[in-house]
Amino acid sequence: MAAASCHTPFRINSHFHENSGLLSPKLGFSVAKFASNVELGRLSFSPSLASSKEYVRHVHASPNADDFINEKEPTPMLDMIEGPMNLKNLTMKELKKLAHEIRSELSFMSKAQEPVLLSLSVVELTVAIHYVFNAPVDKILWDIEDQKHAHKLLTGRRPFLNKDKLVDDRAKYSCRSEFDPFGAGHGCSSISSGLGMAVARELKGKKDRIVAVISNETRTTGQLYEAMSNAGYLDCNMVVILNDTQHALHQKLEQAPTTSVNAISSALSKLQSSKLFRKLRELAKAFAKSFGGGMYEWAAKVDEYTRGMIGPKGSTLFEELGMYYIGPVDGHNIEDLVCVLNEVASFDSMGPVLIHVVTKGPYEFVDNPISKISEDLEGSSSVESLPRNFRPQTYSDHFVRALVTELERDEDIVVVHAGMGMETSFIPLKHKLADKFFDVGMAEQHAVTFSAGLSCGGLKPFCLIPSAFLQRAYDQVVHDVDRQKIPVRFVITSAGLVGYDGAAHSGSFDITFMSCLPNMIVMAPIDQFVLYRLTQSFNWNL
Amino acid sequence: MAAASCHTPFRINSHFHENSGLLSPKLGFSVAKFASNVELGRLSFSPSLASSKEYVRHVHASPNADDFINEKEPTPMLDMIEGPMNLKNLTMKELKKLAHEIRSELSFMSKAQEPVLLSLSVVELTVAIHYVFNAPVDKILWDIEDQKHAHKLLTGRRPFLNKDKLVDDRAKYSCRSEFDPFGAGHGCSSISSGLGMAVARELKGKKDRIVAVISNETRTTGQLYEAMSNAGYLDCNMVVILNDTQHALHQKLEQAPTTSVNAISSALSKLQSSKLFRKLRELAKAFAKSFGGGMYEWAAKVDEYTRGMIGPKGSTLFEELGMYYIGPVDGHNIEDLVCVLNEVASFDSMGPVLIHVVTKGPYEFVDNPISKISEDLEGSSSVESLPRNFRPQTYSDHFVRALVTELERDEDIVVVHAGMGMETSFIPLKHKLADKFFDVGMAEQHAVTFSAGLSCGGLKPFCLIPSAFLQRAYDQVVHDVDRQKIPVRFVITSAGLVGYDGAAHSGSFDITFMSCLPNMIVMAPIDQFVLYRLTQSFNWNL
Repeated sequence: MAAASCHTPFRINSHFHENSGLLSPKLGFSVAKFASNVELGRLSFSPSLASSKEYVRHVHASPNADDFINEKEPTPMLDMIEGPMNLKNLTMKELKKLAHEIRSELSFMSKAQEPVLLSLSVVELTVAIHYVFNAPVDKILWDIEDQKHAHKLLTGRRPFLNKDKLVDDRAKYSCRSEFDPFGAGHGCSSISSGLGMAVARELKGKKDRIVAVISNETRTTGQLYEAMSNAGYLDCNMVVILNDTQHALHQKLEQAPTTSVNAISSALSKLQSSKLFRKLRELAKAFAKSFGGGMYEWAAKVDEYTRGMIGPKGSTLFEELGMYYIGPVDGHNIEDLVCVLNEVASFDSMGPVLIHVVTKGPYEFVDNPISKISEDLEGSSSVESLPRNFRPQTYSDHFVRALVTELERDEDIVVVHAGMGMETSFIPLKHKLADKFFDVGMAEQHAVTFSAGLSCGGLKPFCLIPSAFLQRAYDQVVHDVDRQKIPVRFVITSAGLVGYDGAAHSGSFDITFMSCLPNMIVMAPIDQFVLYRLTQSFNWNL
Repeated sequence: MAAASCHTPFRINSHFHENSGLLSPKLGFSVAKFASNVELGRLSFSPSLASSKEYVRHVHASPNADDFINEKEPTPMLDMIEGPMNLKNLTMKELKKLAHEIRSELSFMSKAQEPVLLSLSVVELTVAIHYVFNAPVDKILWDIEDQKHAHKLLTGRRPFLNKDKLVDDRAKYSCRSEFDPFGAGHGCSSISSGLGMAVARELKGKKDRIVAVISNETRTTGQLYEAMSNAGYLDCNMVVILNDTQHALHQKLEQAPTTSVNAISSALSKLQSSKLFRKLRELAKAFAKSFGGGMYEWAAKVDEYTRGMIGPKGSTLFEELGMYYIGPVDGHNIEDLVCVLNEVASFDSMGPVLIHVVTKGPYEFVDNPISKISEDLEGSSSVESLPRNFRPQTYSDHFVRALVTELERDEDIVVVHAGMGMETSFIPLKHKLADKFFDVGMAEQHAVTFSAGLSCGGLKPFCLIPSAFLQRAYDQVVHDVDRQKIPVRFVITSAGLVGYDGAAHSGSFDITFMSCLPNMIVMAPIDQFVLYRLTQSFNWNL
């Protein structure tokens, strides 16, 4: 409240603790703080479940895996795999069979644990990587933890991947281990850390290879560009694989058709990855170089842009950043994948390579009840049509209701959302707000400064970011919002210690790092009624 | 020390306070803590000067501006300018004369205040922007504060720009004001904030235009890519101007010749920016679209890549991110600049446009003693050759000496540096370490995770980041270093409250946000002897 004496208007930054988080499910004493006659009362049923998304996941995951035991297909090939070494002598036909069995196993597991679904896209890719590269000597880095289940199945961790253990596994989220040289939890760290390992390898005179798998969900993050640009500059040998599920948050459908993977692109990728082509390119470059600057530049460009013109949208982006682009490769064709990876693995001096692998989205493989639920909610265009009795209400739901009420009074309200997925609770808000709802994807830094800009333009932005990811925009919170006293309200989900989210996704430090800012007001509502008041915008310029 | 019981090795994170910062220059009681017979004793002379770079700047800036008063050229045109409105009726010849006078004024000012130098590159650009756009109705946003001095001269702030007031001005670093709709202090915020204002304008039905000026020094920052990608998606009208001084941190000279600006590129830029070409392009797109997806995509690509092939390196990068690229434009040719800006300003519906302006570096305009000093130091390849009696020694100097001693004992030591410039003290270290010194530029997030990767690869990384910019990598410090218990030492300069650095560059919150991390050890050396011990790497895996 010290800031109330400021000359310029300052912001109210509402900090919503979805629940205390520290309470174990068995401790219900926070119930007393909830009005007993509202649906929120049910929240106390399991206070350690942070977000409504988790909640839905939990509720719908509750059928035990044993319920489906009869549906489980036999997996004779997979049963024989104790580690990646067992893959080396398999024929192409056997690799395909193995991939089929892994998908079947993951589909089965996904009935109990939705996150496993995200690994379905990369089954063939994982098999091909472990067939070509030699983990753990070669380092395989994954940008997203949830894409690692096939990788875990192949690296001796199948026994730990049953339903009950998954929660433990999640608690140990992204710990480093023999086959996981770096922890993947927050996304987008794989190229930076991989580049560090590649540089260390060069300095230590070792020969291991580094493979980083990124996905198009983390592609919006700034750190990836910083890392790719630096990788291009250092020109260190490493392989980056972009798993493109064609689900692009930022593409307009009518403007950016999905990349077509066909016979031509397959042949092209093989050509690009061949040692001969690479050598030819180097020769042509050296030849042109001897003619002087301009000619050299021109030759390199013709090479780059010709491939760009044949290749899909985005290919020259990577080339401009200094990566050698190969693709698109069909991510479900093991033969193509093995062929391309083999060529890339055999390069002696190649610099950083980006292989663009096109895969199907995870939901294309299964008929999953949870995804259907999400789609149903996605389709509902108003808060009223939210199936009220469908699931217990969370703070996020109440925030949405409160904000929708506010919207009728104040047309300046806008919402900025950052993050990979979106809480189910926020989906009706997205539909209600339409062009006043900005989902910027995994670009938290931009989200915060963008909100500040909206505020400067006279709007009242609510910026929705999960606590652990707000850390990524801390400088922007400090410099672009707090120091400049620009009114922005942050709605921080999964705030504080949330056991279920694990160490990587808990907002363990939020009270500390937000409270120390001189102009920030940090608030945690005692119940939904206080939350309604915190959401009101009439005191925006308090 | 609680972390000492951890099973895995944990890191020592040295947190060096270069000086207490809170002490005013007149308070010398911290001297008692320094050994009186070493050169560090002199540090107490002015403890509020944070970094050695600042120190050099201060010492060499000490000649009063009055000393050069006879050299000052008359500025009759500039004297008549009270605000941007006074530019509107000037002829092209008068604009050129005005630019000449502004450069003369800035060169004069730069003798007392080095930061003014950075504005010399953008004199013509600033004049052209204020001639074409109507500030403060149109919003002009600058990515870097130090490039704004010409802008300040033209917007009625000339009286405040004399030598003595500059320090006050710096204290008020990047405050928002009538002609500065957003504070620029940490760089890279202009596109995000500008996009927010552009969206707010659309929603409010206003007609003002947004111009954001970025530079190639901030081009390595991830947030810029997040912002450009989002701007391309939202397709909002805004103008981004890239001031490319051809001083690229990350380009290898033999591989990336500097962009040539000649008659062809000038004609090309004018063509690109012309309404007719733009309309033609839109028509061609619409035409191709009617033939169906593939054809449309192809036409757009041929357009994009053809221009990419003619244009300089980097042009398609921006196109891929969704910006309409125009350039390169000669940044010192007012006629060309006004022509291109006029075309762009008159577009009704254009989406985001990037204008690539090529300018000379600031040091090409003046024969400045300070830059010469930097060059001299840049040329010295060992710590020993540092002119010892040249300037008072700082903690950074002692850290460099200590680390050089350590290097002889431990060949695993590597250094990662992030930031726009580099402290003079660190330059000998860069030469000494050669390929073990990684200057990643303004890419703090990558620097931290990259350091973690180096550590995983068995090296011992020291990560040098000024305190205020470490905030930008807070999530990486939390997630990629602290939580995973990876040994990385952070050498944090300008730590704590450093009065001279102003609010935007002080490390006001560092003790709080670093100390709350469970595995982090935060240390501030009491004197240079303790600093030597903190730098020793034998206790790396303590």
